[in-house]
Amino acid sequence: RSITFGVLTISDTCYHEPAKDRSGPRLMALIAESFDNSQVIAAVLPDERDLIQRELRKWIDRDDVRVIITTGGTGFAPRDVTPEATKPLLDKDCNQLTLAIALTSLKKTKFAALSRGVCGIAGNTLVLNFPGSEKAVVECFEAVRELLPHALHLIGNNVALVARTHA
Amino acid sequence: RSITFGVLTISDTCYHEPAKDRSGPRLMALIAESFDNSQVIAAVLPDERDLIQRELRKWIDRDDVRVIITTGGTGFAPRDVTPEATKPLLDKDCNQLTLAIALTSLKKTKFAALSRGVCGIAGNTLVLNFPGSEKAVVECFEAVRELLPHALHLIGNNVALVARTHA
Amino acid sequence: RSITFGVLTISDTCYHEPAKDRSGPRLMALIAESFDNSQVIAAVLPDERDLIQRELRKWIDRDDVRVIITTGGTGFAPRDVTPEATKPLLDKDCNQLTLAIALTSLKKTKFAALSRGVCGIAGNTLVLNFPGSEKAVVECFEAVRELLPHALHLIGNNVALVARTHA
Ligand code: NA
Repeated sequence: RSITFGVLTISDTCYHEPAKDRSGPRLMALIAESFDNSQVIAAVLPDERDLIQRELRKWIDRDDVRVIITTGGTGFAPRDVTPEATKPLLDKDCNQLTLAIALTSLKKTKFAALSRGVCGIAGNTLVLNFPGSEKAVVECFEAVRELLPHALHLIGNNVALVARTHA
Repeated sequence: RSITFGVLTISDTCYHEPAKDRSGPRLMALIAESFDNSQVIAAVLPDERDLIQRELRKWIDRDDVRVIITTGGTGFAPRDVTPEATKPLLDKDCNQLTLAIALTSLKKTKFAALSRGVCGIAGNTLVLNFPGSEKAVVECFEAVRELLPHALHLIGNNVALVARTHA
Repeated sequence: RSITFGVLTISDTCYHEPAKDRSGPRLMALIAESFDNSQVIAAVLPDERDLIQRELRKWIDRDDVRVIITTGGTGFAPRDVTPEATKPLLDKDCNQLTLAIALTSLKKTKFAALSRGVCGIAGNTLVLNFPGSEKAVVECFEAVRELLPHALHLIGNNVALVARTHA
């Protein structure tokens, strides 16, 4: 049995020109190459708090969706509202996972200090806010890749997420 | 005059089989060997938010209890609710103390990213959430040991916590 | 055109003896020597939550004030309420900026774990809580100096903050 990941690209630009979305497809590829029994659903939304919350809620309520990764909308611009859309939906704040991801980003560039993403648990779903850039998405995914099977096991899946073994 | 520490073990398993609690007794020993004028009260509770809050509140309201250390219930499992029980009781969030403890844990293992404990001040009491494992408890206590006398002095004790001098 | 910084010293002692305020004047000097087109307004307040909030709100509502740096009131003492005064005014929590500043402080001294400052965005204004000591203020300013022009650009100023080039 498989575990479904939701990849939500949040960007006004990508919403109007989906071909410009590099981070969402990159995340989908990273997930597929990292886990043997993963499936991915994806969407692109503009930086609108209500629309983001409605999509997140829909995915959280699906029993098969066990991880949601958002990309974009975590910065300092007035339209950046991804963390504000995410936080009210969380049952539990995963502060040290947020920290671990941030430390990875800060090692690469001090401008990671201008990101504001959070991680938490909503129902049986782990929700992770990643920044919008493709480079940042790769770094943040690398920071959580090894943690995800154990994290999902603890959240209480009766299906194990299976890491792909590279030859 | 002495300062009382509360050690609260939070674990369904340990609640039903108190002999399995290694982290609570270990914390009690660490406190006794670290501070000349410390006393310790202890309890074991299951992972039940209401029960945890009631005990924490009782200890916070005691004038002699100036530090509470919880162990357990900080993870990703559905029953792990220690931070959720703790946060509504805090008057002040001690975010950089939470950070300092987390950094110590993350240096030991990347799986510390799956802990979610918080630190804060409630009335005249410093409350610290430590993870449940004995190993983690030792590391986290080491991270705060030297800070505690100054921290308690600032919170406004008229009694000083005296660090034990090792020969 | 210029960008106005607000420097708010929060200290019962400095409020009654303004000549004792070293951190506020030091911050004003650091701002002036770092940015070509900066202006600074300053005030000294006692550790009173309502007074702090009223002044912060007044400055946040001024269109020309784009950065507010508070110094003091971030510790563990009962009168230390700067973060509690600040947080309800923030539209957005800048958790990774708070982290970047804290990491800088923790590299200098483990007692930085006893600071509790936060960073966030309120309207078009970036609000930063620094500790009260002159030494800490210098370290924290150094941690954000290079980030400020980009941060303000993102928040949406139509005026750029210009870093001073040292010969
Ligand atoms: Na107490």
